[in-house]
Amino acid sequence: MGTTSRRDHQMHLGAFIYYAGHHHAGWRHADSDVEGMFGIELYKKLAATAERGKFDMMFFADLLYVTQVENSASGMLDPLTLLSALSTVTDRLGLTATVSTTYNEPYNVARKFASLDFISGGRAGWNIVTSQLDIEAHNYGKPKHPEHGLRYEMAREFVEVVTRLWDSWEDDALVLDRESGRFADGAKVQPVDYTGQWYSTKGPLNVPRPPQGYPVLIQAGSSGPGQDFAAQYGEVIFTAQQSKKAAQDFYASVNSKLSQYGRASGSLKIMPGLSPVIGATEEEAWRKFHELQALIPPSSAITVLSGFLNYDLSGYPLDQPLPRDIPDPVAASNGMKSRVQLYMDMAYQDNLSILELGRKILTSRGHMQFVGTPEQLTDVMQDWFEGYACDGFNIMPPVLPGDLDDFVNTVIPVLQERGLFRTEYSGRTLREHLGLQRPDVGHFRQEVQRAAVDVR
Amino acid sequence: MGTTSRRDHQMHLGAFIYYAGHHHAGWRHADSDVEGMFGIELYKKLAATAERGKFDMMFFADLLYVTQVENSASGMLDPLTLLSALSTVTDRLGLTATVSTTYNEPYNVARKFASLDFISGGRAGWNIVTSQLDIEAHNYGKPKHPEHGLRYEMAREFVEVVTRLWDSWEDDALVLDRESGRFADGAKVQPVDYTGQWYSTKGPLNVPRPPQGYPVLIQAGSSGPGQDFAAQYGEVIFTAQQSKKAAQDFYASVNSKLSQYGRASGSLKIMPGLSPVIGATEEEAWRKFHELQALIPPSSAITVLSGFLNYDLSGYPLDQPLPRDIPDPVAASNGMKSRVQLYMDMAYQDNLSILELGRKILTSRGHMQFVGTPEQLTDVMQDWFEGYACDGFNIMPPVLPGDLDDFVNTVIPVLQERGLFRTEYSGRTLREHLGLQRPDVGHFRQEVQRAAVDVR
Repeated sequence: MGTTSRRDHQMHLGAFIYYAGHHHAGWRHADSDVEGMFGIELYKKLAATAERGKFDMMFFADLLYVTQVENSASGMLDPLTLLSALSTVTDRLGLTATVSTTYNEPYNVARKFASLDFISGGRAGWNIVTSQLDIEAHNYGKPKHPEHGLRYEMAREFVEVVTRLWDSWEDDALVLDRESGRFADGAKVQPVDYTGQWYSTKGPLNVPRPPQGYPVLIQAGSSGPGQDFAAQYGEVIFTAQQSKKAAQDFYASVNSKLSQYGRASGSLKIMPGLSPVIGATEEEAWRKFHELQALIPPSSAITVLSGFLNYDLSGYPLDQPLPRDIPDPVAASNGMKSRVQLYMDMAYQDNLSILELGRKILTSRGHMQFVGTPEQLTDVMQDWFEGYACDGFNIMPPVLPGDLDDFVNTVIPVLQERGLFRTEYSGRTLREHLGLQRPDVGHFRQEVQRAAVDVR
Repeated sequence: MGTTSRRDHQMHLGAFIYYAGHHHAGWRHADSDVEGMFGIELYKKLAATAERGKFDMMFFADLLYVTQVENSASGMLDPLTLLSALSTVTDRLGLTATVSTTYNEPYNVARKFASLDFISGGRAGWNIVTSQLDIEAHNYGKPKHPEHGLRYEMAREFVEVVTRLWDSWEDDALVLDRESGRFADGAKVQPVDYTGQWYSTKGPLNVPRPPQGYPVLIQAGSSGPGQDFAAQYGEVIFTAQQSKKAAQDFYASVNSKLSQYGRASGSLKIMPGLSPVIGATEEEAWRKFHELQALIPPSSAITVLSGFLNYDLSGYPLDQPLPRDIPDPVAASNGMKSRVQLYMDMAYQDNLSILELGRKILTSRGHMQFVGTPEQLTDVMQDWFEGYACDGFNIMPPVLPGDLDDFVNTVIPVLQERGLFRTEYSGRTLREHLGLQRPDVGHFRQEVQRAAVDVR
């Protein structure tokens, strides 16, 4: 395969924290701390473990609703609140979280991430999502969630506004001269005066330019509009990839789009999700995996599958294959279209039963599921990394905190021995960990201008 | 004077943090850490000092704009981001901040404060404000800030929605039974289904009910609508009072309104702002005060005064009294009406020059300014507290961190010796510090119903 991208010589790793584990039934496992889900101690422990493992970053997803509280781990503390709390008990770890563009104000988002970047000394990253579901819209007094394409148009404008607000103070605007009484250089603090189709702001922001210039911009969409958005603004992509071949195609496709936006190769790191069930032997790993799968209630599998496919399957027999005559679920989906396609392909190719497909989704939500030993896992990670399928991985431990601990204790040392991962942080900021340049004021607008000149 | 309120036997204290000091020129003083304004170390130090002093809470104000960056301390890190960061390095201190109802979504505010309450073990408090200025509206894509009365109507609905969201999980909704796979009792997690004039939400919230039931509700308005709002929802009022007599009238007025809303006396703590310049001798204190006043640039005094009165005074001679023929500034003001009235009275009564009035506003922004020794300050605080002028004070150190340190080192011990302030925390939560009851689900709706029954 191969591309002409400038590659970092080591992979990047995220510690993706989700409920008391990524596996749907992970919270029921003895190694979970589900009792700690709504306190800070669990997350302090996880952050300490991730930092001990020299992870580039800790990553929190976000959902703006709850359903199925009866049988599923439900409810999430606000991710930015958690990251801020963790900033004072960590030193190097990147602190990244999902914040939706659809249900927030750009001025607030710009300020919150700038503030996190300041208090963490340049360790903040924003996973830009557009949310997914009508039930999220209903919590915000809106009758329905905006359509997929429109959401990305809105998101583009949202990010435009946010980056302009981060640029509204030049890097050296603060003077702080007690003697003369000059606090800042007013000429270097300028309004934004942005009037867009969906968002407008006068500015300037009420916080100076963040230490990293912009907190790292992360993007998680893998659909067409998602890829284009990432190629324009993303510096990290979290993507769901099930096979090395698909991941290589995705890697090549996204990288080829970078230049359209005047961006240097290497300026966008692609990190697929990876959910590892690890055992000292293969047998032990599989035993743990089957144990987890059996803990998924059949009713949850059906409910989640019905929701995912936008079609009520509760009347169908659980042990039969997914019917082929249901309305096209990809067309019906208003979010995660690429993920839905992936599962449809899997269901029909492998002739999975409804229960099997439902449980499969609940296992790692479309991300790569690995079961095996630390050496086997390292082999896969090395193969993908060296084969230009990715720049690293977002690790999704099935049970938290136990499986993050296991990963750091057993997999990280093997990666390090093979020279695939850092043994110590060399930088201070998340940009430094990721090998990303610090953007100048007006960074994206200059890139777009450069791209326009290239095209002419 | 006196009222029939149930009084706490000791006063309550807040440590109000604002820029590098409350005094307009405080940042220029040698004891300020203005260089630390956009980092976390300053705030960690302040929190540690406040906790050492056994303060009930730390309090952050908020402004959603910057102006005058050239000559004034400008820009503020997001207060909730700071409080979250401080939650992991403090143990007992209440963590309270201003969040505007006008430029946020109720679902987000409910969740953020619930999250802070969880991670701090029940130490969160929300200062409910409606913001003040058109330049804030402009940052949020709105042509103008809503009118004063309307804002309070909107705020009432906003708080209604937020408290219903906090109530959407019953206190014992979480089950967390690994064996049966039951995460929560679905019957105890219910939608809110609220459709209001300005805000609607379906719910439930995506976070369980906070440890305190509701984070403590603080209110800072002293105008008519502000008082009514506080009497309905507030559990703490931060108010600006210049004289004991006016404070006593305010205290009696607000307390008399409580029963209209079915609320018990003692369920609302009134804490005026107090900005103390302290010296070992009176002379030393006054020297410091005059030193600070002289650091206020005349241009800042005129600009701020003009903004405050909504009338451009830059053409007038600085050493002359405030002209009496300017348009009524109280009518022209769309925020802090009670504060404007207070300064107008002061200006005409004391025949202040324009410069003096401007500098006076910039000294403590309408709050009580004290200059003297720790013993003298304690006398004043005791006199107000015992005279039913307040339930405590929100301390506004003119220079930060220096003057908070001084207050804790020199004033707190005198208050403690006289039995007026705690020598150790007896509780864990902010409600416990303040002697406020933990509200049951449906608390405010029940109170309103009780009040309706009483009236009938």
